[in-house]
Formats: sequence, C-alpha cells, structure tokens
Amino acid sequence: MRVRGVAHRTIRVAEDGRSVEIVDQTLLPHAFRVVKLAALDDALRAIRTMQVRGAPLIGVTAAYGLCLALRADPSDAAIERACAALLATRPTAANLGWALAEMRGALAGVAPADRAAAAYAAAGALADEDVALCRAIGEHGEKLLAAAPRRSGAALQVLTHCNAGWLAAVDWGTALAPIYAAHERGMALHVWVDETRPRNQGASLTAWELGQHGVPHTVIADNAGGHLMRAGRVDVCLTGADRVAANGDVCNKIGTYLKALAARDNGVPFYAALPYSTIDWAIGGGAEIPIEERDAAEVARIRGRGADGRLVEVEVLPEGSPAANPAFDVTPAHLVTGLVTERGVCEASRAGLLSLYPERRSTPR
Amino acid sequence: MRVRGVAHRTIRVAEDGRSVEIVDQTLLPHAFRVVKLAALDDALRAIRTMQVRGAPLIGVTAAYGLCLALRADPSDAAIERACAALLATRPTAANLGWALAEMRGALAGVAPADRAAAAYAAAGALADEDVALCRAIGEHGEKLLAAAPRRSGAALQVLTHCNAGWLAAVDWGTALAPIYAAHERGMALHVWVDETRPRNQGASLTAWELGQHGVPHTVIADNAGGHLMRAGRVDVCLTGADRVAANGDVCNKIGTYLKALAARDNGVPFYAALPYSTIDWAIGGGAEIPIEERDAAEVARIRGRGADGRLVEVEVLPEGSPAANPAFDVTPAHLVTGLVTERGVCEASRAGLLSLYPERRSTPR
Repeated sequence: MRVRGVAHRTIRVAEDGRSVEIVDQTLLPHAFRVVKLAALDDALRAIRTMQVRGAPLIGVTAAYGLCLALRADPSDAAIERACAALLATRPTAANLGWALAEMRGALAGVAPADRAAAAYAAAGALADEDVALCRAIGEHGEKLLAAAPRRSGAALQVLTHCNAGWLAAVDWGTALAPIYAAHERGMALHVWVDETRPRNQGASLTAWELGQHGVPHTVIADNAGGHLMRAGRVDVCLTGADRVAANGDVCNKIGTYLKALAARDNGVPFYAALPYSTIDWAIGGGAEIPIEERDAAEVARIRGRGADGRLVEVEVLPEGSPAANPAFDVTPAHLVTGLVTERGVCEASRAGLLSLYPERRSTPR
Repeated sequence: MRVRGVAHRTIRVAEDGRSVEIVDQTLLPHAFRVVKLAALDDALRAIRTMQVRGAPLIGVTAAYGLCLALRADPSDAAIERACAALLATRPTAANLGWALAEMRGALAGVAPADRAAAAYAAAGALADEDVALCRAIGEHGEKLLAAAPRRSGAALQVLTHCNAGWLAAVDWGTALAPIYAAHERGMALHVWVDETRPRNQGASLTAWELGQHGVPHTVIADNAGGHLMRAGRVDVCLTGADRVAANGDVCNKIGTYLKALAARDNGVPFYAALPYSTIDWAIGGGAEIPIEERDAAEVARIRGRGADGRLVEVEVLPEGSPAANPAFDVTPAHLVTGLVTERGVCEASRAGLLSLYPERRSTPR
C-alpha cells in the first residue's frame, strides 16, 4: 500500500540484506516510522510490544526473527531456543505457531552453514504468499460486499473491529482487503471503525489506513455499534481473526463477540476474513484457544498527540483502581455468517471449512 | 457519601442561601472540586458540558437552575424561557423534563415576589426525595444481589456500565445504591467497571466512587464484558437508566444494549435501577426516545493526568478522520431481567411497571 505516494509493505529485508525493517505501529497514526530489527531480541520485542501486530504479520515477523537468530547461531539448539522464545511472545494468534512450523519444515535437513540463507528465502516466501492470500481474500470478499443488501442509501455501510488491514498483514490485509478491492472498483461504501479499546487499533490504525487510501469512514466508540445496527445503519460486519477453531469458532480482538451478538439480533451478516494459516485444525472449539491477558497499564494509560503535536501518555484511572485486560474473545460459530478465505467464502463450521480445505478431512479430531 | 471523610452531596445550596454548589465531574478522578453556579447560564453550562450528569442529578440541577433564573427575574416569561433553555440542554434523560414539570407545579399560583423562595423549597424537596428514592432502590436491589446465584467463588461478581452511583444522583445513586447497601452489610462482592467510552464515566467516576468507598472493583475496556460473561465471571449486570419507556424498554448510556445481549446469551441476569422519575409513561417504546448525538471531539480527544500530574488532553485520531458520538442506546425490554425501583423490583414490561405503579393504569397510551 502507498503512504504519501510511496509503496510500502509492513515488513521487508533491509538493503543490507540481513536486518529487517518494520513500520513501528505503536507510533501510528501520529508518526510513520520504519525501524530496523537487527537481532532476535529486536523481533521478540517488536512482537511483544506490538510494534508489529495482526495475526498474519505476527507470523511473518516470527519467521524473520528466526532468520535473525540463525545469522548469530545456526545450530539446532539455537533454532529450538529461538522458536520457543518467539512462540512465547503472544499466545493467541494461530499464525505465529504456523509460521514457525513452516520455517522448521524449510530448514529440515539443511546444513547449519546454509540455514540462514534458507531461512531468509523461506521467510520471504511466507511474506510473498501472505500478500497473495490477502489479495485472494480481497477478491472473494469484494463479491460478497457487492452482493450485500443495502439497508439505507446507496453506500454500503460496513462495520469493522480492530485492525485487519494491510498493517495487520504484509499488504492489503484480511478484513480490509475486500474493502480496498471494492473501493478500487468504484463501489460506494463507508466504514464504521470501532475505536477498539484498550489499544485503539481501530482509531489509530484502521482509520489511518482508510484515510490514506481515501476510503470514507467514521470512528465510533466500541459501545456504538449495537445502536447503529438497531438503527439500520450497518449493512455488513467484517472483521479479521486471530485463530479459527476447526468448528468455525472465531477468536478475534476483544469485543468482536459483542458485535456479532448485535449483528445476529438485527439480521446484519457477520463475516470474519482470514487466510488458511489462521485456522487451527488441532483445536476443536473456541473454548480451547488461549486468551492473552495483557498489561493492565494498557487500560490505565492512553497515548495521543498533545497540544504541541508531541506524543504524550496520560493516566485515565483513579489512583489505586486496578484494571484487567483480556485481549481476545471467542465468537461462537453460530453467530458467524461466513468465513472469507483465500479459497472463497464458507459457512463457519467444520463442514464449511472442509468444503474449502478438503485435504484436511483426514485431520484427526 | 464521604470523600476523604467529609460527607458530600453532588449538589446543594451554598452558605449564601442562593448560589448552588456542585462537584465538577469533568475533573474527576483527577481532582475533586466543588464549583458554584450563580445564575441560570451557569446551570445550563454545567448540564451541557457534563460537569453534572446522570439522569437524577440532571433533573435536580435543572430544578436549581430554575431557582437561579427566578432570582434574577420571577416573571411568567422568565419561567418559560428558563424551562425551555434547561429542557434543551440534553434530550435523553427523562428526569430533566420531569423535574421541570414538578417545579412548574410547585410554582403554580405563586405570586412573582414569592416564586424564588418557593422554587428553592421545591428544588430542595426534589433533592431530598432523590436521596430517599435512591436509598429505597438500594434496599430493594440489595436483596436481589443477596439472592443472586454465584457462578464462581464467594464474592458476587457484578458488572456495571457508565456511572449510576452517587455522582449520578444527589446521593447513593441508582445502580450503585444496592452495591453500597450490600457492601455495608458485609456482602463479599466485586464490581467489573466498564470504562464507558467515549467519556469514560466508568473509569473516571464509578471506579473513583467505589475506590473512595472501599468496594473491590476492576476497570475493564467496554469490549471485555462479553468475554467475562462467557467465562462465567459475571453473576449480575446492573446499570442505571436515562429513560424507561412505558413498555419497559431501557434507554441508557451507549453500549448498555451490547452488555444486555451478552447477558442474555450467557444466562446472566440484567437489571436496570431507576427512580419513578426516569419512567416516561408517555412513550410507548424505546424507538420513540430521542438519542443525543454529542460532539465528535469526545471520541477524538481523551483527558488524563500527564507525567507531572497535571491534566492534559490528547488527540487519538488521525488528522482528517471523522468520528460519530451517539450517547445512548435502547435495550429492548425482553433483554432486561427486571427493573429495580424505589417501590421494588418488577418485570420490564407495561404490566410489570403497572404492578408497582397501579395509579398509572389510567395513563393513556
């Protein structure tokens, strides 16, 4: 995607051919800054502090983190240590474990001296594949948006939660890919952007992305979506996913479940968009998905631009009041109208997923 | 309620016997400051800018606003002008129109020279009545909390949205009155406090109130309540109300509806607590209730304590991204387990309300 006219991906190998450049998403929308990851520790910190976030991008960053580790030490023990450390950064997104498994597969049988080069090639392939997957999700989702009934006016009203745009992937995104595709084909649409407390990924990232791309949008408090649906002002809900269980349960950013309930209550279709790497065939239902508990400080403090334009962090809680910060929730499959994948749209169920991924029929459950 | 050991109400006549003192709630939880309203314009500004807020307190402040207007000009025309201006400050809370109607009743037939004195007496009576109503709501609600099944552990887990504590009324509050009553009787309980974006009344006011009173609580993002209910970590939802239609539909702070949906989906009882003055017998259903649209700047800017302890306002949206800010939503009666009033607990329905207020059977609909 273009930022001020320059094409960017969220992650890429730097000109030195070794270090990895990412967009520091903790500074958006206030500043657009590309930072360098030179070693495994940088990658661990980038994932943990959410300089990079979004299930697909977490996976690709972990792949490059392993590359950086192998440059320092290509031994079997180093692979084990790096994978364990990367896997421990964040528990919920399926793509993290998936990407590391892919990388291990690519490194199997490769001599230590050749491992770093093989790892960079494999990570680059994962990044390129992610772009292709998101483009395909965009094509399938765009048809869905084109066919969706409009409740009011000519512009399709889409509600999204959190950020599942190009910033959450390598390019294009998952939930926003259909929106970008539709916008490019001239479809009139407007996106209601959930702020997405406590980290404000909607207000900070989705609004910024859509604004850069010229897509009409309006930021709303997370509380507002139900009211808008009751008022007939939402035609479709479309979110990403961090992990989808084999039965179609969707684990996504905290608050997604509440929007799915409101969508069901008001007859609004609710879709989640995701690549195959987000599906966890080993998990039978959402209750088994580990839900990350993040630092309460994310609820207690908010960062923004002060009057002088500089970034300031402010405390919003009374002194002494504790906070809790579960980062994801599970939307049961029966509330999900469909899953938009790179292979097409399916029902959120084991049967639905198997209709798109028949090669998984033999996966034990 | 006591603040640092000193008993306070949210509003009272100052020692000069004329001006009115309020707690400036826009500064909480960062500073506790009592400010003086000396004229009608001060009262209008206090309601509009939410220095005072909460349906019962808006009503009492409007009553005192009329007193201040009558001190300057006790003519019939001045009453009309003042009531019209006060009524226009905020459209949703039923208590505003109710309090002004009560005041007009008290002033009917009073000679202009005696009106100011009569108005202060009437406003004082409304304030005292509000305290008594909230105490009664507390008693009825406390029994309900005592009887509620505990899903996990010994402490009752209550989720509340926005602020319906003593800061929303003259004293005690509506939704928090049962919690204070239960806490004083030694019941083990813990309150999940929804942050309540965009104005953060939960994080700013409810958390502060509960903390001052020693009630165990935890602040959560508005997004988190559904997940907590799915996890069996909420035993009861208890909120206030800004207007209740004659059919039991509950209009309350934006986001209440989403919590009621989650409560229903997880078998968690959902109650709204309110005095009779919040019931609008002239409105048959929630769809007729006017929903206030507030300034988008409330979504775009957040105020908190900076590193030096001073209040700072920060911008959180990208430049150029618009925001929308509907302030209330309607929870349909069928999602409400019961209404807690000063006369007891009833079903959220016309029949339920009439069982507590049989004198309203003749109200035309």
